[in-house]
Amino acid sequence: MSSSKLPVLYSYWRSSCSYRVRIALNLKNIQYTIEPVDILKKGQNCTKFRQVNPMGKVPALLIDGHTIVESLNILHYLEETQPNHALMPSDVYQRSKVREVCEMIQSGIQPLQNVGLLSHLESIAGKDERLKWAQHWINNGFRAVEKQLATYSGKYSVGDEISLADCCLIPQVFNAIMYKVDLEQYPTILRINNELVHHPAFYAANPLNQPDCDKLKNKTDS
Amino acid sequence: MSSSKLPVLYSYWRSSCSYRVRIALNLKNIQYTIEPVDILKKGQNCTKFRQVNPMGKVPALLIDGHTIVESLNILHYLEETQPNHALMPSDVYQRSKVREVCEMIQSGIQPLQNVGLLSHLESIAGKDERLKWAQHWINNGFRAVEKQLATYSGKYSVGDEISLADCCLIPQVFNAIMYKVDLEQYPTILRINNELVHHPAFYAANPLNQPDCDKLKNKTDS
Repeated sequence: MSSSKLPVLYSYWRSSCSYRVRIALNLKNIQYTIEPVDILKKGQNCTKFRQVNPMGKVPALLIDGHTIVESLNILHYLEETQPNHALMPSDVYQRSKVREVCEMIQSGIQPLQNVGLLSHLESIAGKDERLKWAQHWINNGFRAVEKQLATYSGKYSVGDEISLADCCLIPQVFNAIMYKVDLEQYPTILRINNELVHHPAFYAANPLNQPDCDKLKNKTDS
Repeated sequence: MSSSKLPVLYSYWRSSCSYRVRIALNLKNIQYTIEPVDILKKGQNCTKFRQVNPMGKVPALLIDGHTIVESLNILHYLEETQPNHALMPSDVYQRSKVREVCEMIQSGIQPLQNVGLLSHLESIAGKDERLKWAQHWINNGFRAVEKQLATYSGKYSVGDEISLADCCLIPQVFNAIMYKVDLEQYPTILRINNELVHHPAFYAANPLNQPDCDKLKNKTDS
């Protein structure tokens, strides 16, 4: 396959939703090229990006002649079209546990602490509220996730196989660290994170290892 | 099947996530009993409910000897275990469009305007911000949903078959009306809503037709 035929992932290094997709692509051994989009600067590459995804949101995956958007949607599209290195169990009840963890993070935590929301909050309530707000909602969500994982995790979030649940959990832990959340309160989450954060597929997907990462930025500022 | 063996849906009438599940159960002709849980009052039935779902969140579906939680997870569990009256297309790309609409609402709109978040916002920024905030995020999300639906909707959200996308869209429109959002800005959303709101499965699932609905409450207050 020539490199021009590889899937293209439009990604922003610190977007935890982009991070989810990078992990899954790596776990499935799917070769892809990364096209960084700085969604904060709204510069030239953003204008060009809107031709690919009119929503202007990352991640977006150009694959099979289609642009697939929304991170969990991309994960399930990959699972359906490239089932090797499965990231969903075959048992229907176990599948529901994987989707449960994903949804608790995807709907119950991430949207409440993303950059767009925090900027809007700042315009209403002032800059000092940003960090407190992010911590409040990450803690609120992690209390529930910890409770559930304590009942059904194995080596990883659901049983002993890496799943889409882990593709969501590890990026949310990265955000929690960025927002200075005390993770000692969540021993199961911490254990799974420690298990996976140095796994090659997760390590390569880590925001700090992305070509567009600006390590000098204040990581808690946005 | 005796009624004691029917699935039990723990539901709150004005919870749009409960509404999604009620629609899907109706569309699939699955008989079920409703157990109303007043998540705002935190009374006796809430304490009892925590034995079923320790998270204390609705919806929760007791089915096949399991408690399934998180609304989209429930929808997909039903789709996988009771595939009759399919609510997902068979084509992988069309499936991705259905999941895209669901995720735009489930992650991009609903969590930003739910009661828990608005109460927390009120404690920081005052009561006057609640309605403005809800309208801001519903409009922000609906602009994107409208743009996408304008390109790929048919009679319904994705093509000419009712899908999980519609199970998410119609409840979000209900919330938008509750929060006095001007829907004339979203002609495609409005058209699909008008198509479906009187459909028997949607009508029976409507918050105002639930046994626990208190029609005298101020619908914009929480």
